[in-house]
Amino acid sequence: MLSKNQIKNITRLKQKKYRQQEGLFIAEGVKVINEFLNSNLKLVDLFTTDPFNIEDETIITDKDLKKISFLSSPNTALAVFKISETENLNDNGLILALDAIRDPGNLGTIIRLCDWFGVKQLICSKETVDCYNPKVVQATMGSLTRVSIHYTDLEVFLKNTKLPVFGAFMDGVNVYKSTLPKEGVLILGNEANGISKPIEASVTNKISIPRFGDLQATESLNVATAGAILLSEFRRS
Amino acid sequence: MLSKNQIKNITRLKQKKYRQQEGLFIAEGVKVINEFLNSNLKLVDLFTTDPFNIEDETIITDKDLKKISFLSSPNTALAVFKISETENLNDNGLILALDAIRDPGNLGTIIRLCDWFGVKQLICSKETVDCYNPKVVQATMGSLTRVSIHYTDLEVFLKNTKLPVFGAFMDGVNVYKSTLPKEGVLILGNEANGISKPIEASVTNKISIPRFGDLQATESLNVATAGAILLSEFRRS
Repeated sequence: MLSKNQIKNITRLKQKKYRQQEGLFIAEGVKVINEFLNSNLKLVDLFTTDPFNIEDETIITDKDLKKISFLSSPNTALAVFKISETENLNDNGLILALDAIRDPGNLGTIIRLCDWFGVKQLICSKETVDCYNPKVVQATMGSLTRVSIHYTDLEVFLKNTKLPVFGAFMDGVNVYKSTLPKEGVLILGNEANGISKPIEASVTNKISIPRFGDLQATESLNVATAGAILLSEFRRS
Repeated sequence: MLSKNQIKNITRLKQKKYRQQEGLFIAEGVKVINEFLNSNLKLVDLFTTDPFNIEDETIITDKDLKKISFLSSPNTALAVFKISETENLNDNGLILALDAIRDPGNLGTIIRLCDWFGVKQLICSKETVDCYNPKVVQATMGSLTRVSIHYTDLEVFLKNTKLPVFGAFMDGVNVYKSTLPKEGVLILGNEANGISKPIEASVTNKISIPRFGDLQATESLNVATAGAILLSEFRRS
């Protein structure tokens, strides 16, 4: 049985403050946990209703799992991992940069996209949702360990990079007719406001995804689907 | 003030059974409601804390809105609309078909993609989540009225279509190297299981999105992001 103290120590990892203080984060579900066990991440605790047959696991009841899970329908396992140290940021390759992405599901999907398209480095502005947020971890489906994620002052990074800087804008050049480089920074903007003015100032190449539907409709694409299309364009060429 | 009966009649529209029985669905938020008011949809009731200054509106308190809203953080308005009759399904153009998409957020994002890429007809297998589910309506951001959505026996439709049928498979032909037609059916499969065997039997062209990341990683793309990339490929050519 889990002690009250154990439950408190785990559930408070829902908050960024405690994740940063303890250097720990939560992963739920057999699939995600197995992906992490096979990575460089260090396991701290594993609570499970079905044995994984590894050291350090604690078999618990469904009832106890419910007490520590962040999911409305808990899986069979919850693990606590150490947050790994961020690698050095290298100013090369195709880099994705996020300007204040707020939705955990969007960030998770974007990390998965980076993994698929071999984007090794993801730079997040400090206003971007924390990548160790339980909902982000869940949405990444294990991709989290294969992408190097850096939280930094995006404005400063963009001022110093030697790479061309691409951003999606309604009035940008048709991306289907653009010649895209192998190396560069691609910026995706906030869900409601797009790319902010200070960040826009560093964009060297404005691109856009043409719209084929009714012109009366004003809605933009969801940021993760726009990111999917743009990364696809960078890689297909 | 809202009566108990009014609250019951609205909140039960969360269930597909009652939506179908009453031929009604719910939309929340000023932006989405305004998009619907400017469409062919027929408004039945509008409950709002801030006046829209239209006929048929009922000004209510925040407290009452909370009682009828499906959102954890209610917006300022909730409207009841009539479900419009489905138009005839035409066997032409680029048609998107969904084989048992379960997640409301995914369906909403896919409807928005159809709107963006000018895909006028969306065919959903009967196992696909209902497009009038409140979470779907929310995620479409108003695109719902610009796409004609048909729930039908997908297997039967595919057996009778004269169009080429495309489906995404791990072992399909590289989509970047395929010549894609202007007219055809593109199938997206279930989040966990992909395209089912009976549906696969009707696929004439298997395509795939190449992976650029580590080959050890086995995860697939999220269905909405895969759909974004494939629709982009059909339209860009």
